[in-house]
Amino acid sequence: MASNQEEVKVFGMLASPFVSRVEIALGLKGIEYKYQEEEFGNLSDTLFKYNPVYKKVPVLVHNDKPISESLVIVEYIDETWKQNPILPSDPHKRALARFWSNFIDDKYMNALGKVLYTHDEKEREKCIEESEVALQFLENELKDKFFGGKEIGLVDITAVFIAFWLPIVQEVMGLKLFNNEKFPKLYNWSQDFNNHPIVKEKLPSRESLLAFYKARFAS
Amino acid sequence: MASNQEEVKVFGMLASPFVSRVEIALGLKGIEYKYQEEEFGNLSDTLFKYNPVYKKVPVLVHNDKPISESLVIVEYIDETWKQNPILPSDPHKRALARFWSNFIDDKYMNALGKVLYTHDEKEREKCIEESEVALQFLENELKDKFFGGKEIGLVDITAVFIAFWLPIVQEVMGLKLFNNEKFPKLYNWSQDFNNHPIVKEKLPSRESLLAFYKARFAS
Repeated sequence: MASNQEEVKVFGMLASPFVSRVEIALGLKGIEYKYQEEEFGNLSDTLFKYNPVYKKVPVLVHNDKPISESLVIVEYIDETWKQNPILPSDPHKRALARFWSNFIDDKYMNALGKVLYTHDEKEREKCIEESEVALQFLENELKDKFFGGKEIGLVDITAVFIAFWLPIVQEVMGLKLFNNEKFPKLYNWSQDFNNHPIVKEKLPSRESLLAFYKARFAS
Repeated sequence: MASNQEEVKVFGMLASPFVSRVEIALGLKGIEYKYQEEEFGNLSDTLFKYNPVYKKVPVLVHNDKPISESLVIVEYIDETWKQNPILPSDPHKRALARFWSNFIDDKYMNALGKVLYTHDEKEREKCIEESEVALQFLENELKDKFFGGKEIGLVDITAVFIAFWLPIVQEVMGLKLFNNEKFPKLYNWSQDFNNHPIVKEKLPSRESLLAFYKARFAS
């Protein structure tokens, strides 16, 4: 199918860092797409049809073929459009990128999810500790401007929550999880990442996220 | 480096289905390797050095470069040795293989881990239900001899626990989680998979696993 006939659609939600991963990956490739906003708690029938297993965003639909799960989608984008590679070409470096990318979901996002949603104070402290251990691993792993080297790669995209969401979430919750003193390299990385012209274009506005989390934690 | 100078080493444990994934993938590629058995609760310093993040098996070491996490390792094997592909070449089919492979770990292995290790009867029943829903998704997804088509692919390798471990575990625990009546397609698949000559060569013996789980659940 010729490139000008391609149809690329993203089903997303404003406040989802998982959706941002997909939009940033498409942005880095220079691919235009239609964006369909889904409503929390009131997902469309189309979304259910496209993602019957997890029933959640993001879903990428490329020429009528749906793909779910943000990291699976990002690898699909990298394999479908070859310009501006997101994964390195060397197999060992690819493996490391996948390893750290999975690490962020397994060890960081899980621990932080529990910090945000548990009511048990002891459990929360344990999860904060876990999340700090995970951030320290990432701090040690960062050896260049980006995890991907001079350019944004898979691990950077996966870590969008840490760069952009985390400072907002900790402000709303009155927590100190991530700052320049604790994690200086990661903090500098977050600034470079958030200010990258394509990332900046794809991220939701700080104000809209602040409003979203304030409403969420108030209720 | 010439192929006859390559050094491939696997750090494993007899009873680990995650290690089996790696050994089956290497077997399908026809790659010889040295196997180093690790002791549960008494891991070697070498393993700690190679996998400081998770401190667990499997670890693949290829020409002194370590890689951890079974699914990351299997993709590395597929990208390093091109013969007998484990993932399809079409990007959308690759995405589906990764999706279902991750599904097995997220939705099935997690639910089943809780079935085996919880003492709460209600919690166990909930997890059994979840694990059955996950198996039903896989039953519906199986459209050929293997998930990979005529040949074993990523999803088959990921599902080795279901094919070989699950019948043993349910026997030891007196549970009925997986059989021919509930999941006829998956059951036939499990027979084909376990009897594949390379899989058969790489799996631990049924007797050793039975003994392992009997000892484990007795204690």
